[in-house]
Amino acid sequence: MKKHIIILIFLSFLNLNSQDDKEIIKRIFDNSMSKSKSYELLDHLSNEIGGRLSGSLNAERAVKWGKNELSKTGFDRVWLQEIMVPKWVRGPKEFALIETQPGTTFNVDVCALGGSVATPSVGIKAQVVEVKSFDELKELGKDKIDGKIIFFNKPMKPNEVSTFNSYGLAVNQRVNGAQEAVKYGAIGVIIRSLSLRLDDFPHTGVMTYGDLPPSKKIPAAAISTNASEKLSNLLKINPDLKFLLRQQCKQFDDVKSHNVIAEIKGSVYPDEIILVGGHLDSWDLGDGSHDDGAGVVQSIDLLNILNKSGYKPKRTIRVVLFMNEENGLRGASKYAEISKKNSLNHIFALESDAGGFSPRGFSFTSNDENFEKIIKWKNLFKPYLIHYFERGGSGADISALQTNDNVLAGLRPDSQRYFDFHHAANDTFDAINKRELELGVFAMTSLIYLVDKYGINN
Amino acid sequence: MKKHIIILIFLSFLNLNSQDDKEIIKRIFDNSMSKSKSYELLDHLSNEIGGRLSGSLNAERAVKWGKNELSKTGFDRVWLQEIMVPKWVRGPKEFALIETQPGTTFNVDVCALGGSVATPSVGIKAQVVEVKSFDELKELGKDKIDGKIIFFNKPMKPNEVSTFNSYGLAVNQRVNGAQEAVKYGAIGVIIRSLSLRLDDFPHTGVMTYGDLPPSKKIPAAAISTNASEKLSNLLKINPDLKFLLRQQCKQFDDVKSHNVIAEIKGSVYPDEIILVGGHLDSWDLGDGSHDDGAGVVQSIDLLNILNKSGYKPKRTIRVVLFMNEENGLRGASKYAEISKKNSLNHIFALESDAGGFSPRGFSFTSNDENFEKIIKWKNLFKPYLIHYFERGGSGADISALQTNDNVLAGLRPDSQRYFDFHHAANDTFDAINKRELELGVFAMTSLIYLVDKYGINN
Repeated sequence: MKKHIIILIFLSFLNLNSQDDKEIIKRIFDNSMSKSKSYELLDHLSNEIGGRLSGSLNAERAVKWGKNELSKTGFDRVWLQEIMVPKWVRGPKEFALIETQPGTTFNVDVCALGGSVATPSVGIKAQVVEVKSFDELKELGKDKIDGKIIFFNKPMKPNEVSTFNSYGLAVNQRVNGAQEAVKYGAIGVIIRSLSLRLDDFPHTGVMTYGDLPPSKKIPAAAISTNASEKLSNLLKINPDLKFLLRQQCKQFDDVKSHNVIAEIKGSVYPDEIILVGGHLDSWDLGDGSHDDGAGVVQSIDLLNILNKSGYKPKRTIRVVLFMNEENGLRGASKYAEISKKNSLNHIFALESDAGGFSPRGFSFTSNDENFEKIIKWKNLFKPYLIHYFERGGSGADISALQTNDNVLAGLRPDSQRYFDFHHAANDTFDAINKRELELGVFAMTSLIYLVDKYGINN
Repeated sequence: MKKHIIILIFLSFLNLNSQDDKEIIKRIFDNSMSKSKSYELLDHLSNEIGGRLSGSLNAERAVKWGKNELSKTGFDRVWLQEIMVPKWVRGPKEFALIETQPGTTFNVDVCALGGSVATPSVGIKAQVVEVKSFDELKELGKDKIDGKIIFFNKPMKPNEVSTFNSYGLAVNQRVNGAQEAVKYGAIGVIIRSLSLRLDDFPHTGVMTYGDLPPSKKIPAAAISTNASEKLSNLLKINPDLKFLLRQQCKQFDDVKSHNVIAEIKGSVYPDEIILVGGHLDSWDLGDGSHDDGAGVVQSIDLLNILNKSGYKPKRTIRVVLFMNEENGLRGASKYAEISKKNSLNHIFALESDAGGFSPRGFSFTSNDENFEKIIKWKNLFKPYLIHYFERGGSGADISALQTNDNVLAGLRPDSQRYFDFHHAANDTFDAINKRELELGVFAMTSLIYLVDKYGINN
């Protein structure tokens, strides 16, 4: 016991040298796996607050909760950064069915896409044209599309190791499908849910009309992958079947909301900022446990773990819980704008926004020199099997902070299950594994420890 | 299209050189992620057959099913290898409660350990002594233990990256707890379930009485981790509380069962055998989807994927579905015995028995020379993030096949969730992710492809 106390004092008050890294990281591991608050924080955020779409009451409850939790953790200062966010409201549960002939119908699991307009209150009912690309729309032309509903049915590609790559290859139909289809006279679009599973959950997500005037906007909805398969099969038998879609979602004027920011001043280099964060808003169907409750609680927990591990930051550490990542990125924009105005020096920023799954490592946006430095830390993560250290993107909320000589990073958990839950009603707390969430905290805290100790760009 | 056919013919009929490995492995990947039968095979095994403890009707149904499925896959020969297996039957659902005072009781989620004797039909009821080690038993001695129930409450260690390590550190209390406790006069043992989660599932598993005569055997049961926490807390308040345990499990005489074996003769080196397998039996509480339905269906699927990828084995490939891994290893012993008698040359054996989770790589039991050869293949698996290639154990069913110059391997999936399900009622098909299972098939098939192409020990 005595020996432990002596070691602790030694490590807390003297300069640490690189021989200690292995030991400190082991201590961060032990604390992360036994003293983390992440799981209970997420239990509260998910189960007591729940889904928190920008502009909603729950989003504001999450802001208050985030500020309160950060205030308990030993930061020098916790504050709110005001922003205006879009307020889109889903309204009553959407309804859809396939009518193969009058009186013969099949119910369809459906949800409006975020940002979509409503249908008329009785819904829209029309023939369906199935396509897999915008090129197909062009080939079919106005003749074959006018007055119909376009069904975008491009599945996510199964033979990609990273499901984020599969998502990237298919997401265009959701984001831009409506504004493309309306060019040819479509009266609505339905999108195959962006999931690699066959199940009954429709997956929402942001869509945009671009510059379309209000009168030209057509309703856009996602249907489940099972419903997509069924619709596609029924269309082969009966191309004249009708589809009925009814949704009453609505875009309101922007409302006030906030980023939540906490800061502990560095003891040696207070002007060098290391940012860690996730986004506080989520979609409304589930409780947003993976997207991005996990990243939020891991970010909140990080200083707690550093403290328990006896490490005092030399540089300034900021936790930012960004608002409105899902449908506007207003929080990220405002944060970057104010940072620029104040000439803040973010030497490093880390976002966790890829789910609370078993972490595999990090991807880094960096110049060559800094990356060479970082890649040397990889071996410290190897005993924990978290040593995927590759160049790549970081996170939507922090990418605007990129400079020529800083480093941005994204936590990279195993991606196989992520899109089973993404933006759907099953993104809930029960889909979180406590150990996997805590391993994420460990990985993040260890990386921040190394960045703080050795700096970037020196 | 024409070009594809030409390439396919070229690859199927000419000798392949190492430049092709990347391409072949990509093809194995594509086929594994889009044409695998593993998920539907497992659906049947889990949902139509279910839990299949050695000696049970379901185990025999699984033998028939396994033989039938292997017969469809293009092997030269499929046969059964007869063995005698223990037959232990759980009987009616077990019952347990904590009585803090007469009339004040708390129900406890409980299950008998595999191999345990029954309690008297009214159960046993006694005071409880909580311990965390066999040393503690010794310290307490007969005075404090005689006539009581020993409660082994050593939790799995959270700060191990591999949950199999945590399991290894705690499993002794389950396997040998009863024969240790009875030395000091205990009348029964209850064991904290070997799970890292706090939940209500009791986890069974094998236990042994060593050489104890029947009259000395005492009943052994597992209680859930939540119940363990509750019992431990109640004992702090009231050390005199009573525990009631009732179970009616029974050991019968050994019965006949089978390993299921399939073989395709190598076109060039028919005497060099490459074995791939998993175990067909499971515990009885769940349907054994992770332990080890996953390994069984991956093994069955492997030749299907090789065929679809246009690769014809030069060496003999054997699939073995072992019987009785869980409580006797009789299938493994018999297989090794007969292999030895027939001087079979197993140059390589691969077992998948660590769950159907996202694969991280393999561990290898190998001499230095062979390991040097294998480690060179690691880079071929890196694009798929399945490049954990380390020395270590392989699998319980194949370890008896070890020689000085062959290689044994075990598939190593991410282990974080494995013990959430292991030997418990929630090890069911819904805990399987299709992609993760298929990535396992991909990893196994690619490794077998390389072993077949390049051989071992040459």
